[in-house]
Amino acid sequence: MSLQALREGQPAQRRRALAKAITLLESSRPEHRAQADALLTAALPFSGGAVRVGLSGVPGVGKSSFVESLGLHLVGQGLKVAVLAVDPSSSVSGGSILGDKTRMEKLAIEPNAFIRPSPSRGTLGGVASHTREVMRLCEAAGFDVVLVETVGVGQSEVAVAGMTDCFALLQLPNAGDDLQALKKGVMELADLIFINKADLDPKAAMRARAQIVSSLRLHNQAHGAQGLPEVLQGSAVSGEGVAEFWAAVHRHKTQQGQAGQFDARRHAQDLEWLQERIEEGLHQAFATHPAVAAQWPQLKDEVHAGRLAASTAARTLLNEFLGVKTHG
Amino acid sequence: MSLQALREGQPAQRRRALAKAITLLESSRPEHRAQADALLTAALPFSGGAVRVGLSGVPGVGKSSFVESLGLHLVGQGLKVAVLAVDPSSSVSGGSILGDKTRMEKLAIEPNAFIRPSPSRGTLGGVASHTREVMRLCEAAGFDVVLVETVGVGQSEVAVAGMTDCFALLQLPNAGDDLQALKKGVMELADLIFINKADLDPKAAMRARAQIVSSLRLHNQAHGAQGLPEVLQGSAVSGEGVAEFWAAVHRHKTQQGQAGQFDARRHAQDLEWLQERIEEGLHQAFATHPAVAAQWPQLKDEVHAGRLAASTAARTLLNEFLGVKTHG
Repeated sequence: MSLQALREGQPAQRRRALAKAITLLESSRPEHRAQADALLTAALPFSGGAVRVGLSGVPGVGKSSFVESLGLHLVGQGLKVAVLAVDPSSSVSGGSILGDKTRMEKLAIEPNAFIRPSPSRGTLGGVASHTREVMRLCEAAGFDVVLVETVGVGQSEVAVAGMTDCFALLQLPNAGDDLQALKKGVMELADLIFINKADLDPKAAMRARAQIVSSLRLHNQAHGAQGLPEVLQGSAVSGEGVAEFWAAVHRHKTQQGQAGQFDARRHAQDLEWLQERIEEGLHQAFATHPAVAAQWPQLKDEVHAGRLAASTAARTLLNEFLGVKTHG
Repeated sequence: MSLQALREGQPAQRRRALAKAITLLESSRPEHRAQADALLTAALPFSGGAVRVGLSGVPGVGKSSFVESLGLHLVGQGLKVAVLAVDPSSSVSGGSILGDKTRMEKLAIEPNAFIRPSPSRGTLGGVASHTREVMRLCEAAGFDVVLVETVGVGQSEVAVAGMTDCFALLQLPNAGDDLQALKKGVMELADLIFINKADLDPKAAMRARAQIVSSLRLHNQAHGAQGLPEVLQGSAVSGEGVAEFWAAVHRHKTQQGQAGQFDARRHAQDLEWLQERIEEGLHQAFATHPAVAAQWPQLKDEVHAGRLAASTAARTLLNEFLGVKTHG
């Protein structure tokens, strides 16, 4: 697997090479991981060029239609678009968000589009096990825009906001939905809000927009926060507002760049990526250590029953894991 | 060091034994830790009997005076009171909150009171390295109330709320302070709020109370949260409101118990304690591993400069740490 295969040749061949590279990344076999690491290292100098956009919203908000509509708009402008999905509901099967073959039919056949689910690997792997890495490979393969889609589950939204330049939240034009997002702390993450399906009831959409803006103001006031995200409206199905959405993404990027926040955000995200992978690796090695795994259920029960101090249980397990001789 | 020394004899002797046991807990020498673990295990069946109360508030709110006033009130009722401090500002020196010898002079000389700082041990050890363990020793030593005090820094307040039955926030009777606490997300943690120094300006205190209640209602409304903490007022210096505070702690405990939440909270805290100690131990072992420590600065720089994928850097360090042979 070479970097050349990602960067040269016909679009269809390059998409196949990218898909194969991602499979290597997702493999649990050490030799595959070593190949993927080598490829990632080779790819890194060619990465970073895409606009990284996160997208979220509750089920039914029309995320797939919006991504397809936005994707087609961008492809129509001559841009190459990669769509990745972070799906906390999927485990080994391969991403239920994008597992549905009927989704994004039009975008899927575009030569300049690449659609890939990014299955989480259980609780250990986190909600977005390899999405940060896949993003770099897409960038090295020449994609201009990487859209990272996730469902409206708090944890995955935090993850996606933490790996993108602009995190956008799709909303429905009905009351209460904005409070839902506020409750979960998701709206605080949003750089941009798009009220979808506004064509079904334009008046409701206007009300929703006013309500969201006022909720955000109230929230900012209570929390002493600065700066409101732009709130747009439109329809993924009719395409209304999609070009405006893209213009707003660019405005956000320009503002961030002028404030020196664009690079700062990316650097901070790179260090988070490092910390995440270390923590993940430590947890996985610990949890799968035979002696730890063998003793864990009993020690946990004893802590729960109040028979064993948690710190003592932790030390016992850590000593096993680290191969330390115990004293006393 | 035996459990008997904690549980039998004169108050002064038992306080000395407790102080010595805590020193063992805080020692970094493995043989001390093994002794402390043995003591903790012996003490555990005798622990859990105290009311665990967390206290926080910004500098200047009068925390020390309040703790002293409350402590004297409780001692006056024949209760034994331990005061622990979680101090994120101190590192090795030994707790700047309680380092000041002039604090709580009256409480310090009470035979039934025990005052001990709980220094954090840098970033690795977390903000409350041994406070959970010290709390159990205090309980086994027969203390009826454990007050855990911390300063108004978000991280330490989360830690203290996560180890107590009732987390109380002290507030000043001036406008804006409530918004400060809301902003930091601290007021959401509070089970009880006490407006101190109300005697200096009773009208301002009444206004502050109304404002806090309204802020909490607004906040709950925006976040869909249930249940408001009780908001009391008084003065640590005059003693006004201190008995009411203690009555409110008991009301909270009774309500929690009736709702089945008291035991559930403690069980959840025990499992958090276990997770915390494991994570701490893993981080410490990782960060102090010679090969990891040697390579960390350079790898971090390369990730920051975009020359190395964070996942590859993490894998390199993890392989060193775990003693894994690398492939490819």
